[in-house]
Amino acid sequence: MTQLRFTPLAQSLPATVPFVGPETQERQRGAPFDARLGANENVFGPSPRAIEAMQKAAGDIWMYGDPENHDLRHALAAHHGVSPANIVVGEGIDGLLGYLVRLFIGSGDAVVTSEGAYPTFNYHVAGFGGVLHKVPYSGDHEDPAALFAKAAEVDAKLVYLANPDNPMGTWHSGAEIVAAMEALPKGCLLVLDEAYVECAPEGTAAPVDVGDTRLIRMRTFSKAYGMAGARVGYALGAPELISAFNKVRNHFGMNRAAQAGALTALGDADWLAHVQSEISTARARIDTIAQDNGLSTVPSATNFVAIDCGRDGVFAKAVLDALIASGLFVRMPFAAPQNRCIRISCGRPQDLDAFAAALPGALQIARVQTNTQA
Amino acid sequence: MTQLRFTPLAQSLPATVPFVGPETQERQRGAPFDARLGANENVFGPSPRAIEAMQKAAGDIWMYGDPENHDLRHALAAHHGVSPANIVVGEGIDGLLGYLVRLFIGSGDAVVTSEGAYPTFNYHVAGFGGVLHKVPYSGDHEDPAALFAKAAEVDAKLVYLANPDNPMGTWHSGAEIVAAMEALPKGCLLVLDEAYVECAPEGTAAPVDVGDTRLIRMRTFSKAYGMAGARVGYALGAPELISAFNKVRNHFGMNRAAQAGALTALGDADWLAHVQSEISTARARIDTIAQDNGLSTVPSATNFVAIDCGRDGVFAKAVLDALIASGLFVRMPFAAPQNRCIRISCGRPQDLDAFAAALPGALQIARVQTNTQA
Repeated sequence: MTQLRFTPLAQSLPATVPFVGPETQERQRGAPFDARLGANENVFGPSPRAIEAMQKAAGDIWMYGDPENHDLRHALAAHHGVSPANIVVGEGIDGLLGYLVRLFIGSGDAVVTSEGAYPTFNYHVAGFGGVLHKVPYSGDHEDPAALFAKAAEVDAKLVYLANPDNPMGTWHSGAEIVAAMEALPKGCLLVLDEAYVECAPEGTAAPVDVGDTRLIRMRTFSKAYGMAGARVGYALGAPELISAFNKVRNHFGMNRAAQAGALTALGDADWLAHVQSEISTARARIDTIAQDNGLSTVPSATNFVAIDCGRDGVFAKAVLDALIASGLFVRMPFAAPQNRCIRISCGRPQDLDAFAAALPGALQIARVQTNTQA
Repeated sequence: MTQLRFTPLAQSLPATVPFVGPETQERQRGAPFDARLGANENVFGPSPRAIEAMQKAAGDIWMYGDPENHDLRHALAAHHGVSPANIVVGEGIDGLLGYLVRLFIGSGDAVVTSEGAYPTFNYHVAGFGGVLHKVPYSGDHEDPAALFAKAAEVDAKLVYLANPDNPMGTWHSGAEIVAAMEALPKGCLLVLDEAYVECAPEGTAAPVDVGDTRLIRMRTFSKAYGMAGARVGYALGAPELISAFNKVRNHFGMNRAAQAGALTALGDADWLAHVQSEISTARARIDTIAQDNGLSTVPSATNFVAIDCGRDGVFAKAVLDALIASGLFVRMPFAAPQNRCIRISCGRPQDLDAFAAALPGALQIARVQTNTQA
């Protein structure tokens, strides 16, 4: 036996998991969930043509995928009216965030994000020895002015901003983001996570020049395109930033069928429109269900809705636990005061029927557990 | 515009690609290859049942994969007679090597490998600031004694050994590896890459206790299991080593269909035996083709064969270039004297027919180009 000589950084890291998966919870409870509304997956699924493309590619899976992601990058470039040199494709936004943090952050480097924002970004920052500085939400919105002011204060190398936001679903117009960027300090890269932007109103995507070295934009096929399990994300940015990913990325890391599926999904605008319509319908339904139970929702530009349970985090957690116990996979924000909410992904009618059926009982249980009455 | 504040390490790295993909070469030559024999892909493909499982899973691709890879890890544990705590699943061996290097190697840390061995490992070492020390092959074999002696000399934290070897296809018995490990210095982890072990004779896998903290073993579904494009690899090791991957890995990085495909492939022993038989037939055929052209081969325990072109690296490169120009995707070793060879992956009869047809002309062109006659 020998000593394992991990790096001091690796030695210091906790073996944390950013999220516990629903399968883990299903194994713990000994039964599958009746509805899967916790991870903002798109239950309406990908374009049937994309499914077909992936099925066809399964027979070719003996071949490695193209390490350059050539066809997908070129199609994305045409889609966005930019050059392929502005695009890097990776193993989901999670994978790309890992590479990005690795390129910029070493021991002690400052990074800014919002209290309660995407934990996987924080996981990567901690994993490369960065120091996180957090600012609170403002009225359930991420607060660009506060984020950028904090970035200036701590000399941050990266500042993370999701627009639309997860877990609240709130958003700023792209023009507001661009205006706020006037206060972005020099030498601080804005990581603008637009994972949900295809679910948002026109004008939410930041109208920036793709060659602007002040920011990198993250996009994904996991949400509106319905391919979370395929692991395909991409980043848009200046060529000198994008090309740096080639120094560290897993060049042969992309699944070949996923490449084919994403390429086909991108070309099926009708299906995307169909999904957008379904999401819109589901958001309205979730709002109705909340109102039927005397609760309100936070307006959402995503494929999920935060329901304000009207009390504190302890109460919302009791509601969440009761929903999970009744067979629904749901999650909630981590930080106060946003943790007064539970977060419900847009489901099909049958998924939301199950939620509608379970919510009154869950609220009742929570009220009893927290010893109060509405 | 703003300055991009990369880390000093990232700034120093070249934007290298460990391998240029065949698709890139096809785009450059303006035509697809007639045979794909350069990346040791398994053209015999995965189990038809695995293809079916991936096709079925394509319809579920809206869901993230299980971040714990629970079912696959448990099946692998049963397969190897170990605990699931001894197994980490990742995005191919490439992905796992990246995580492993990250866990152990910081700026200036010493790592040992063989001159001409797997470049993607070297890419990861450089990417985390490690310093590579290389020892030569011995008679076309990786040389465990020399590797471990060098590791002691430079106080290496990691030493890489592929058994069977790539790019030569040679191998040591597992017992020889274990015996050589007596000289492995304390505090140096052996990275034993067994990617090709299912193609090798019985007794090639190292017969070590899975709890032995002196080594980690890498396995893959990319070679004998025929799923290179799926990106599924795994590592076997002591729980305290395996659990450390959870500190840094992309927990939601696995493709859901790939998880399902690998699980099914593992269960189809008949198909694996079929592939092993096809590989054996193809190895013999490649040897015959070489002999028909007055050349010899290096005995192989992998799904490829190194053909000794009988001269130096310049000559072999001329042969390789002529083969590529004639429409065959092939590669060759990087370092002398192994670069006197070209490396041919085991193909189907039609693939090797194309190779047999092209080789005499390629040799002739190389002889003319290098101004010598056989």
